[in-house]
Amino acid sequence: MALNPAGPEFLAHLAEQLPDAALRAPEERDLSEPRGRYFGQAAAVACPRTPEEVAVILRAAQAAQVGVVPYGGGTGLVGGQVMTEGPLPLLISSERMTGLRAVEPAGNVMIAEAGCILADVQAAAEGVGRLFPVSLGSEGSARIGGLLATNAGGTGVLRWGNMREQVLGLEVVLADGRVIHGLKRLRKDNLGYDLRHLFVGSEGTLGFISAASLRMVSRPARSGAAMLVVPSPAAALELLALAQARLGEGVSGFELIGGMGLRFLAEKLPDVRQPFDVPPEWVVLVDLGLPAGLSPEGELETLFEEAAEAGLALDGVIAQNEAQRAQFWALREAIPEANRLIGSVSSHDVSLPLEALPAFIEAALAAVARLGGFRVNCFGHLGDGNLHFNVFAPEGETRAAYDGQRRQVMDTVHEEVAKLGGSVSAEHGVGRLKTADLERYGDPVSLAVMRGLKGLLDPVGILNPGAVLQT
Amino acid sequence: MALNPAGPEFLAHLAEQLPDAALRAPEERDLSEPRGRYFGQAAAVACPRTPEEVAVILRAAQAAQVGVVPYGGGTGLVGGQVMTEGPLPLLISSERMTGLRAVEPAGNVMIAEAGCILADVQAAAEGVGRLFPVSLGSEGSARIGGLLATNAGGTGVLRWGNMREQVLGLEVVLADGRVIHGLKRLRKDNLGYDLRHLFVGSEGTLGFISAASLRMVSRPARSGAAMLVVPSPAAALELLALAQARLGEGVSGFELIGGMGLRFLAEKLPDVRQPFDVPPEWVVLVDLGLPAGLSPEGELETLFEEAAEAGLALDGVIAQNEAQRAQFWALREAIPEANRLIGSVSSHDVSLPLEALPAFIEAALAAVARLGGFRVNCFGHLGDGNLHFNVFAPEGETRAAYDGQRRQVMDTVHEEVAKLGGSVSAEHGVGRLKTADLERYGDPVSLAVMRGLKGLLDPVGILNPGAVLQT
Repeated sequence: MALNPAGPEFLAHLAEQLPDAALRAPEERDLSEPRGRYFGQAAAVACPRTPEEVAVILRAAQAAQVGVVPYGGGTGLVGGQVMTEGPLPLLISSERMTGLRAVEPAGNVMIAEAGCILADVQAAAEGVGRLFPVSLGSEGSARIGGLLATNAGGTGVLRWGNMREQVLGLEVVLADGRVIHGLKRLRKDNLGYDLRHLFVGSEGTLGFISAASLRMVSRPARSGAAMLVVPSPAAALELLALAQARLGEGVSGFELIGGMGLRFLAEKLPDVRQPFDVPPEWVVLVDLGLPAGLSPEGELETLFEEAAEAGLALDGVIAQNEAQRAQFWALREAIPEANRLIGSVSSHDVSLPLEALPAFIEAALAAVARLGGFRVNCFGHLGDGNLHFNVFAPEGETRAAYDGQRRQVMDTVHEEVAKLGGSVSAEHGVGRLKTADLERYGDPVSLAVMRGLKGLLDPVGILNPGAVLQT
Repeated sequence: MALNPAGPEFLAHLAEQLPDAALRAPEERDLSEPRGRYFGQAAAVACPRTPEEVAVILRAAQAAQVGVVPYGGGTGLVGGQVMTEGPLPLLISSERMTGLRAVEPAGNVMIAEAGCILADVQAAAEGVGRLFPVSLGSEGSARIGGLLATNAGGTGVLRWGNMREQVLGLEVVLADGRVIHGLKRLRKDNLGYDLRHLFVGSEGTLGFISAASLRMVSRPARSGAAMLVVPSPAAALELLALAQARLGEGVSGFELIGGMGLRFLAEKLPDVRQPFDVPPEWVVLVDLGLPAGLSPEGELETLFEEAAEAGLALDGVIAQNEAQRAQFWALREAIPEANRLIGSVSSHDVSLPLEALPAFIEAALAAVARLGGFRVNCFGHLGDGNLHFNVFAPEGETRAAYDGQRRQVMDTVHEEVAKLGGSVSAEHGVGRLKTADLERYGDPVSLAVMRGLKGLLDPVGILNPGAVLQT
């Protein structure tokens, strides 16, 4: 169905139905995104405080056939929050829906509104002696609604899962203004179809998530970390299996760091402390969260010795205290910033079956090398099979010179992913960047069902037009 | 849309399109269910070997407007596999789809066809040094397709989740015969909407799950168990929090056993060894699965001492070896059998927010007592907030005498659940037993969306007619 621009008449009519200050003019921050690839457009930004106000906005938009783009912390990396073309939309920002409606340590559950910032949710859990186990680089600005809409991942997925796995219930405003009141606090509920997981990961195209009940987990009694130099990604995976056989879920994080990333860090962020004098080609950051009776340092020592004996570890540094552990993580988290300062030609957020990861890295490096003298920074959440395989211009050259090759680079990498049964969108979502990839690599029957779901829940097509599914 | 009975002409036409022996006459076992509450009807049982054969069957059924009832191991407790009224349906049994298409320890994943029996899947995982973490009483006959269709729970949910949490991908045959090829082996995949979770728990009403990729997990290095006498369910929950604060995910199981259950056991299954001379009113079975460096016996000793000091444990027995641990579990798993031999007036599979459990038990016991001198066996997966609250005739009387009160008893219990924000279907599903409860207690907008989903995926209404949603 053809959409209309959000014109002055529509906005005036909408303003009448909302409290003062619920509509504002868009600012630059509302229209740009972290990688600077997209610049959006919007007639206005609606800032509702309640699901009822969201419902007023969506009802008006549906009646007027005006597109609405949901906006959280603005940290998305695939353009899901930035509509660059088509009739001028309205943005709906969650910035004023920041209530924590409940924090219940006895039930290990909290209820957070869409606009809550992840770091605040983590702090609230910590305040009652619990852990909210999703952690990622942008946690200081990413909001719960956006994290749910994109099913965000991060560094705790290996042990605790993605955002999806934290959700016990959702409150969702549908395109026609009806509200799903689904904020159950239950670990088990088989009363009817599971609607939660339909909205989680749908990037605002099926409904507006206004609040969620989220699980909290026990804080590990003891924590520790090590950076271990490994001869290859295949050895890293064997090392992971070794660690999990001993410690099970005690392995909280298992991150791969490539030599290129360490060299980028040295170049662009020299203040970040590096544990090895000469950047090794492959390093893993192993993070442990253990029961009270175990010593993380002791376990890491044992792991390193066993791994060294088996040829799986060449060198290593074990954090001797919490400050050193924080340093290791600061290094890991600084890699995307160094990438940003270098400026990638094309970034890829891919996942593979674990056993196919080494073959993928080899094949993708070779395929990219055939395109030119690109540099590749391959790093990420190895334990989840999730790599960020980012391609940069040759040393001394700018990314702008390779803009024309971006799509070719991306297609080349994605082809290697598809050959090995992987996904070209592991944790960042589809947004507007990867809609063609979904068409190309998605199962055709699944795609048809997705279109059916979109038609069912958003028949006019007002919700985040152009995201996920091509219109 | 009105359905037609599966008549001789339809069956003859179908038989022509299928290999020999793919259709057989229904037997008593196909039409009865464990609690003897329902007896079904069917024109024939189709036994396809492949998703393509399932597609042939569904296409024919949709064209002829014939209802199909999917059938796994027949262990469901809510009548989901037994159609008792309406035009004579066709059963589709998964009994010949028993292939394990892949078992991949390096990737911690296996691909199982719908007819694989749970115990075989567990054994296959164990064969490669891994664990398939779903475990329940009927694991010797329950099949993967049915377990997925009902999102089955069991005793490992506290640590590893329901069936839902084990699913990395699904192969699903839709009502019109199209096949979703979604057997991805990925931990992270955000390429489009998540369709897995729509089919898991939909009890065969949205599609026929023909195969699944399932995760395997590390086997805990050390195991142990204890049965601890607690003064109350509230104390049991505090004990759980104590255990989790020390051991985190190391607490693999936390089951509540009531005194009534122990007395039923003594009466009906006297060979089951009981650890306490006089059945206590409340016992918890704590199961630990720990890393190599910890002693389960030592940890349980410490836990018991701390709990005793805090007044949370009155007595206890710690398993001294694997055989004793198996005995504790055998006792726990014998309780449903003792219940069956006594014969309940009404059984309830409910879940509550953890913090509301003690209040629920108190309120529900009082409410049932107001209806008459019933006996209640309240037990279950306390760590998940999931209780089986089963109501029996007064001592010396038969269940038949109370048949007329069954619905009243059920409504009374379910009202108490609803008051406290619980679910009247925790792990068994809706089936045909609880469709009225879904109408009554389900969120109205969610229900409308569920009906929309049913209309989208099964417009003729052939898939498991009358299950989950009332027709």
